[in-house]
Amino acid sequence: MASEFDLIRRYFHQATAPRDDVVLGIGDDCALLQVPAGQQLAVSMDTLVVGRHFVPEVNPADLGHKALAVNLSDLAAIGATPAWVTLSLTLPAADASWQTWLTHLMRGFCDLASTHQVQLIGGDTTHGPLSLTIQAHGLVPSGQALRRAGARVGDLIYVSGTLGDAGLALSTQQGRYQSDTTAQAKLQARLDRPSPRIALGCSLRQIAHAAIDISDGLGADLQHLCTASGVGAQIQAVQLPVSAPVHTYLQQTNDWQLPVSAGDDYELLFTAARTSQSQIQQIARDLALPITCIGEITAATTLSMTLPNGSSCPLGAGYDHFAGSN
Amino acid sequence: MASEFDLIRRYFHQATAPRDDVVLGIGDDCALLQVPAGQQLAVSMDTLVVGRHFVPEVNPADLGHKALAVNLSDLAAIGATPAWVTLSLTLPAADASWQTWLTHLMRGFCDLASTHQVQLIGGDTTHGPLSLTIQAHGLVPSGQALRRAGARVGDLIYVSGTLGDAGLALSTQQGRYQSDTTAQAKLQARLDRPSPRIALGCSLRQIAHAAIDISDGLGADLQHLCTASGVGAQIQAVQLPVSAPVHTYLQQTNDWQLPVSAGDDYELLFTAARTSQSQIQQIARDLALPITCIGEITAATTLSMTLPNGSSCPLGAGYDHFAGSN
Repeated sequence: MASEFDLIRRYFHQATAPRDDVVLGIGDDCALLQVPAGQQLAVSMDTLVVGRHFVPEVNPADLGHKALAVNLSDLAAIGATPAWVTLSLTLPAADASWQTWLTHLMRGFCDLASTHQVQLIGGDTTHGPLSLTIQAHGLVPSGQALRRAGARVGDLIYVSGTLGDAGLALSTQQGRYQSDTTAQAKLQARLDRPSPRIALGCSLRQIAHAAIDISDGLGADLQHLCTASGVGAQIQAVQLPVSAPVHTYLQQTNDWQLPVSAGDDYELLFTAARTSQSQIQQIARDLALPITCIGEITAATTLSMTLPNGSSCPLGAGYDHFAGSN
Repeated sequence: MASEFDLIRRYFHQATAPRDDVVLGIGDDCALLQVPAGQQLAVSMDTLVVGRHFVPEVNPADLGHKALAVNLSDLAAIGATPAWVTLSLTLPAADASWQTWLTHLMRGFCDLASTHQVQLIGGDTTHGPLSLTIQAHGLVPSGQALRRAGARVGDLIYVSGTLGDAGLALSTQQGRYQSDTTAQAKLQARLDRPSPRIALGCSLRQIAHAAIDISDGLGADLQHLCTASGVGAQIQAVQLPVSAPVHTYLQQTNDWQLPVSAGDDYELLFTAARTSQSQIQQIARDLALPITCIGEITAATTLSMTLPNGSSCPLGAGYDHFAGSN
């Protein structure tokens, strides 16, 4: 059985490309990092537990990708450029089967880290029920971070990408809905391999008034943003950006809960002044990423959505680790 | 049942005193931190899992203290001043009994955080088998961090405090040794409530050539330091600083493995030039903390200890999360 130190050395030490701002990486009591002058440090930490956030038979490469992606998505939401990551891994055993699993996990993790020039700088390896805790560290020019709390009455509300894909993948996977095979492969990739919207977050500095990433579902995350800002929101169901399979699903079921309440999309939700519209359209073109206006910030501190038939419905709460079903 | 958000709000949001360098604390997608000019950021992450690192019936206030203390001890070892901490907590349930447990956990955690002016700035709360992951963040003047890799041949080797107290507490607790009640209370406090040697670590900047904290045991941690530095060490058993109960134990058992191999002491082990002796003695007086010279760094890359009878023994490896018994 490999010792902890062997494991760490083998998988973590040279897992990611070195960065110039890492003074000391894995192997000492602490990692030592150089935050450039004029930059603030943004940090986000998430834990994923087997049986709660992923199934035991998860593809470990997907898990490695997603565990990092959800933290990078938090950096995107605040407008930070990713820099460093720490990983604490709790494994049931260190035998050969787990070493294979770990190799795949680290492949998914490191491929995404490499895409964003993120260096793994430290962490821990312990024995116990399978779980991962990741902390991502990013840099943002001082005073330019995007917060939840900046939305203003009259701001337009935007989302990137499309909504409900991850939710529909889960429904199909669980047998509650039938998508065709090609559609399901695309949806499944959205669920398993979300793309943190880093470039968008950075582009929105000094443009967006408030931002959040959609991890809990549009309704819940819009609620977080509005509560922090002391405002409300009115959104239009027909304006919600959806992929072709979700469009078909909506036509068949009229179930607007899917794009509104399903989490795991990891798109950015943000608000900006009406006068920023053309700048935002230009960003969308530059990034080849759809950015859609879905409604408006209101003074009334309620959240409601106008349905295609003209009726209005309140937006519900979303994902909750303790109270929810995920 | 309280929701995750209720729990976080209630226990974490105002758990620790605010610091001026926290731009944004708990409640947004990321925490946002200001690293002062001329300082480098030191980070250390540890996971503690029930059944592995602590027993289910652990006093939660002790656990809260120790979980933070082990990370602050890593900051001490590198000479950093603690600043911020993130905490990810995985709890089996969120019912009333766990809320009481959590209140006590946070009391132990926050009391120690307060001692060192550390602010809790973020983290996660999830549902699953009980475990905690903590990342501590400290600041150290650029270029002044203490590393494992700086020991030089001829350096004297020092340890702070006393060795083997935590190990003897564990032996007594597990019925393998009998300490008297007063002694056991003191030893138990050393095991349950270790004091991270922050002031010492900061005082040793520009004096120590290499440093590490003793978490795995003197032998194992001296090995880490020597391996990183490409040197060896010769230590004298009779010079090892021990408390009265450990002294009694050694007289009764002649078991030198205890002060050498037992982990969890969280004292600092460091090396310094012979010419720094008087400066180090002054630091010991200023901090009212014993600092003892236990041996010398050698060119031969082996580690050995001279026993009281004049014979020599190699220093063994220590604690290993996968291979070891802890």
